[in-house]
Order: sequence, then C-alpha cells, then structure tokens
Amino acid sequence: MKRIMSEIGNRLGIVGGGQLGRMLTEAALPMGVDVTVVETDDNCPAAQAGAEVILGSIKDADAIRKLAVATDVVTWEIEHINTDVLIELQEKGFDIQPNPYSLRTIQDKLRQKDHFKKLGLPVAEYQDLANWEDYQRAQRAFGDMVVKTRKGGFDGRGNLVINKGQIWEDVLGHFGDADTYAEKMIDFERELAIIVARDRQGHIDTYPVVQTTHRDSICHLVEAPAPDVSVAKIAQANEIGRVAVESLEGAGMFALELFDTGDDLIINEMAPRVHNSGHWTIEGSKTSQFEQHVRAVMGLPLGPMSMEGSTWNAIMINILGEGLKPDGYRLTTRDLEIAYAAVPEMKVHLYGKGARSARKIGHITIAGTFEGPDAIRHRAVLARDLIQV
Amino acid sequence: MKRIMSEIGNRLGIVGGGQLGRMLTEAALPMGVDVTVVETDDNCPAAQAGAEVILGSIKDADAIRKLAVATDVVTWEIEHINTDVLIELQEKGFDIQPNPYSLRTIQDKLRQKDHFKKLGLPVAEYQDLANWEDYQRAQRAFGDMVVKTRKGGFDGRGNLVINKGQIWEDVLGHFGDADTYAEKMIDFERELAIIVARDRQGHIDTYPVVQTTHRDSICHLVEAPAPDVSVAKIAQANEIGRVAVESLEGAGMFALELFDTGDDLIINEMAPRVHNSGHWTIEGSKTSQFEQHVRAVMGLPLGPMSMEGSTWNAIMINILGEGLKPDGYRLTTRDLEIAYAAVPEMKVHLYGKGARSARKIGHITIAGTFEGPDAIRHRAVLARDLIQV
Repeated sequence: MKRIMSEIGNRLGIVGGGQLGRMLTEAALPMGVDVTVVETDDNCPAAQAGAEVILGSIKDADAIRKLAVATDVVTWEIEHINTDVLIELQEKGFDIQPNPYSLRTIQDKLRQKDHFKKLGLPVAEYQDLANWEDYQRAQRAFGDMVVKTRKGGFDGRGNLVINKGQIWEDVLGHFGDADTYAEKMIDFERELAIIVARDRQGHIDTYPVVQTTHRDSICHLVEAPAPDVSVAKIAQANEIGRVAVESLEGAGMFALELFDTGDDLIINEMAPRVHNSGHWTIEGSKTSQFEQHVRAVMGLPLGPMSMEGSTWNAIMINILGEGLKPDGYRLTTRDLEIAYAAVPEMKVHLYGKGARSARKIGHITIAGTFEGPDAIRHRAVLARDLIQV
Repeated sequence: MKRIMSEIGNRLGIVGGGQLGRMLTEAALPMGVDVTVVETDDNCPAAQAGAEVILGSIKDADAIRKLAVATDVVTWEIEHINTDVLIELQEKGFDIQPNPYSLRTIQDKLRQKDHFKKLGLPVAEYQDLANWEDYQRAQRAFGDMVVKTRKGGFDGRGNLVINKGQIWEDVLGHFGDADTYAEKMIDFERELAIIVARDRQGHIDTYPVVQTTHRDSICHLVEAPAPDVSVAKIAQANEIGRVAVESLEGAGMFALELFDTGDDLIINEMAPRVHNSGHWTIEGSKTSQFEQHVRAVMGLPLGPMSMEGSTWNAIMINILGEGLKPDGYRLTTRDLEIAYAAVPEMKVHLYGKGARSARKIGHITIAGTFEGPDAIRHRAVLARDLIQV
C-alpha cells in the first residue's frame, strides 16, 4: 500500500520540562513520538517520564538552537521563553509549532490585548503605563484596576490590584523596571475557559467550556462541563475561541480564560499551549489535551474532543505545595493512602517536584457519571484535603 | 491530622522491563511510585518510560537480589522468572508481591493443573509425560491432545498439537529435555478471560469478563465486555476467578484464560500478573489493570473496576511485528498517520520495541459508546490494518 505521509520525523522538542512537558511526554511516547526538552534540571518532571534533556534555561538561545537541531518539531510548555530565537530558527527553516510570531503577540499581554481588540473580541478596558501621567489617567478612567507586567507573569505573579489610595511609587516599587499596563477591574460572576486545538491542516476543534475557580490568583479547581451555562453563552465562548485562534498561526492548543459577567464574556487572557484548565481531559475527554497537542504539532489529525457522554462530569483540583513540611518535600504514594481509601475513584498525577508554597506539585481528577457537579466536587475536595491539609 | 499509614516505601521493583513493565511504569510514576526493573537492555520499554534499570536477565539471582535491596516491593511482569531467589528473598523478609510460593505453583503448568483440580475447578483432562508409556496412555485416553512444556511457554511457544500419526520421537525432537505434559484438546466455542485483583488486605474484585480471539496461538483481539454471554456464565467465570485467586496468596492481578464450550467454562491457564487480555482497561475501565496492580502491591486500596457505563464497549487489538520490514524496525508516529486519519478515536500504545515476526510491538484500543461490538471491532481492525499490513 502506498502511503502519502508528511515528511516530519518523530522527535518532538519542548522548551520547558515541567509538569506540562511531563504530561506531553506521557502522551507522546506511546504514539511513537520521542521527546527532548530544554530544562535546567536533568531530573525535571519531563525527564522522569522519559524525555531527554538539553540543559539550559527556557530563555537560553543556545540551548533552544540545540533543541531545534536535535528534534523534528519544536513546541513549548510555557510562553515566557526566548521568542527571538524561535523566530530566528523558523526563518532558517526549522519547524516551530505554533508559530513563534503568534507567540510573540500573545506573550506580551499588552500586545495581546491590542490584537484581540482590533479583532473586535471583548477585552477589558486597558492602558499602557509608561509614567505617572498614564497612571493618573488610568485611575480616573477605570477606578478599581489591576496593574500587570506585560511579560512573564503567571498564576497571579506580576499582578497588582490597585485601590484608590495606592500611588505610583507603590507600582514602581512592586514592578521595578518591568513594562506594565493597567486593566479595568472586571466585576465578574465566575471564570470560564475554553481550549481550542488546531492541526497543521488548519482544522479547528474545541473542548467543552469549563468553569475555573481561582484561589489567591492560582487556578484551583476546574469543572467540566461548566455547570449552568446557557447554550447562547457556550456558543459565544466557542465563537471567541475560534476567532482568536484563527487570527493566530500554527498548530497546537490555545487556552482562553474568560470572565463571565452574567451578561457577557470578556477575554481575560490567552495561553498558546496546553493549560491547567485542560488537565481534566486526560480522564474526562476522548482525547487529552496533551495527546491532542502532540498530534497537532507532529502532523497527525486531531482526535475527538467531546466528553464520554451527556451525563458525564469531570473535575480537576490542583495539589499545591502549601502546608507540606519540610519545604522541598516530594509527595509519594504513602501520602495518598488515606485519600485513596476515601475516594478510590480519584486519579492522581504527581509531577515529581519538591513542594514549595503556591507551587503546583500535582493534581487530582475525578471523571464519570455522577449525580451532578456538586457530588463530584465534594469527592474531589475531600481527596485533595486528605492529601494536602 | 494523624494518619495511620502502612510503612511501605515508594519504590517498586519489577522483574522484567518489557511492555507490561512499561505500562506499569506509566501507571506508577504519576501516583508517586518510582520504578526499577531488572532487564538485559538499559533501553528496554520500561526504561524508555522512566524506569531505572538493573542489568540482568529475569532468571539472574544476583540481579533480582539487587532489585530487592534497591526497592520496597518486588513484583514481576512475566512468570517465567527465577522463583527460587524470590522465595529466598521473601524468607529473608523482603516484600514480594504476589506470593512467590503461589508463583511457583502457577509457573509450572502441571502443578497449576493439579492445584486447580484439587480445588474442584474445571480443567481439561491432563497427564504428566515422563516417557513413551505415559505418551501412549495419554493418546489412548485423550485422542486429540496438546503437549505443553511445564515451564516457560507463552504465546503458544512450547505447545505442540498432537495428531494421531505423531510419535514420541516427534515430541522429544520438539521439546528436547524440557519437562512436558499432555492435555486433552478442548472443543471450545470461544475463549474468555477474567482478571481478578486482590489488595494487601485481601479485598478481591474483578473486571468484566472479556472475549479473546487468538491467531496462531497469539492473543490478537480482546472485546470487553464479552458479547452475548449469559448472566449465569458471567457468574460462573467470576466464581472460578474468585476461588482460584483465594487459593493463592499475595496482592496483585491474576488473569484467567477460559475455554467456553457452550455448556461450560474450563480453565485454560492462569497468569499471576497483568495480562494482554486487560490492556483495554487503560481506556475502557475506571481503573486500568496497571494502576490496579501498582495500587495492590504498594498497599493502596483498589480502584473501581467497572466500565464507564452500561452502553460502553472496548476493544483491544495487538500490533505484531509481521510484515514490518526491515526486521527490528521500530514503528513511529509517521506509521500511524493514515490510521489516525481513518480512525481518529483510536488510542495507540507502542512499546518502543523493534519489530520481529510474532512479536507484540504495540496495541490499539477503542473504547466508548458504540452501536455494539461489531461497529467498534470494524474500526479497530481497520486501524490495525492501516498500521500493520
């Protein structure tokens, strides 16, 4: 039989070897895709699951160049990386997915806002902050607002909520030299998220809209599908997701965090990669976001993204480093014993990382047919508490 | 909170690092269980997925002793290993699961038959073969029969079907010095299998009964649940499984292959380990056999073993090394492209092994709600053919 196949090889390079790189590796290897990551620790989470490591930071141009030479396709697990070198490599003909020019747009949150605004997508009012005058103007216009670093922030790090009394010197003290912008505080009822996949032929598909609950700005709990969302709102989320992704280039997963104000959806931010709001897909969807990302960037067709049935629910809850003594402690199977006894249906994913306050060191998923989201949420919180508290 | 936990550590040792060791490793690592295997190749399938390797054969007493010292619990992925050293280690206080005395009984197919017969479990008529007189007596008693090696056979290797014309010299020529026994050929309608789990507290649970289809004595296709099986027969299979496992000791998975003669079930053989007839559980059951084995031997409670719903079907089909040129060729993601396009819902597990005739190098599973087993079987066979033929 004659096969018309793409000419791509089978080694995937990932900039970053943390938990997302690890779960990409877990998905890749059984599909015959070998993995190399750039990471500073040769026992990083991805390495523990079978990835090769090129030692270097995610900003290290030389390490990323080595990665491109050693692999067939380069992708990333985090957006705060050296985009210049990815663009340079793409210009030289290396295969980088998604497109690093799109990464450059997304990576800078101010440019990201400009980009989405130009497309007519709903974003919060925002304004560049170069100086004291900008700051005053923003405060007058927005009232309550959040100042954010344009680059490098995640899990709420790099954000400062501005109350009326706060002065420009506080902002300078908090952010130092970093470029910042101000965003009007959105009065939202809840947060939703949608993850969009695109393959190399341009086919687009989405997971069900999920509800995310944050605690101290860190994603804490994800419910799939989001409970009590109108069909109109689901359609709106899908439309926003498709328009946003069609405005960008390259194959892979794109996650959109959305504020649900009750009346409307407003884009919070996009991550051009696999995302914490999609971890539930490992057990809860027909194709996990990690498998889907590997398929997309390696030139395979997408898998089905629906849940297993209309009565299906999934819940994901993060395990954080808080309260685990000593600092740096790595959870093992012994720490799970009581939780497994109470909630035998839980699925645990530990990342092989030492505990640190506010650090995600693992997650739990429960998926299946339950009597609604309350029952399943109760089980997941119980399991998490028996592991973590 | 005070926790009463078992004192077991978190490193699992596995004798053997092939595909079963690999899938055990894939299940173990996210649960915080580290893995070391004994295997002759430091790039064996399990090592590729993140297991440490102690170099040595599965019969190498020194390597197995090193494994016991380096780990907290020792188990195996194949039964044809050095049982004497496992018994020696258990006597010295090392934690071996399941019990190596039970392994010794099962490992020798003649002793296994004696054991099950004594329990009143249904087995084919059989007879030890020490010499020509035994052989003649068996032929007179059984007519058509199979001669099998007592130890070391698998996937039909070590079996010889005896027709009327065959003489004792043929048997000697085939088996050489190996101890053999004869088994009356069973006229069966189909083959079924059941996998039983037992945790360290003695709790027992089972997966749904599956139907297995062999081709050239190699397991080829597994359908879960087995189609068109009466409730009475399911109850009978469960009863046989429970009685068999309760007669043995130790934690872990135990697989029983059964002949379905239409009227009755007859035990073909048992494997005291994870088994090819349970690969479908990765996607098709609430807890995979690999996760369940790790939970059982590491002192965690068992997970739920049912399928996801009453309309659920799963099918597993092996990918063999046949027809893959050159010999030793390792399938990669490129070889899967056409199959993914035709059957996007398939889940592929390649083991990272070079192809060889009759060697299992991977498998495909399709699981979900389908319009009955025919539809799903058709999809799986199509996918396999697009990869393999």
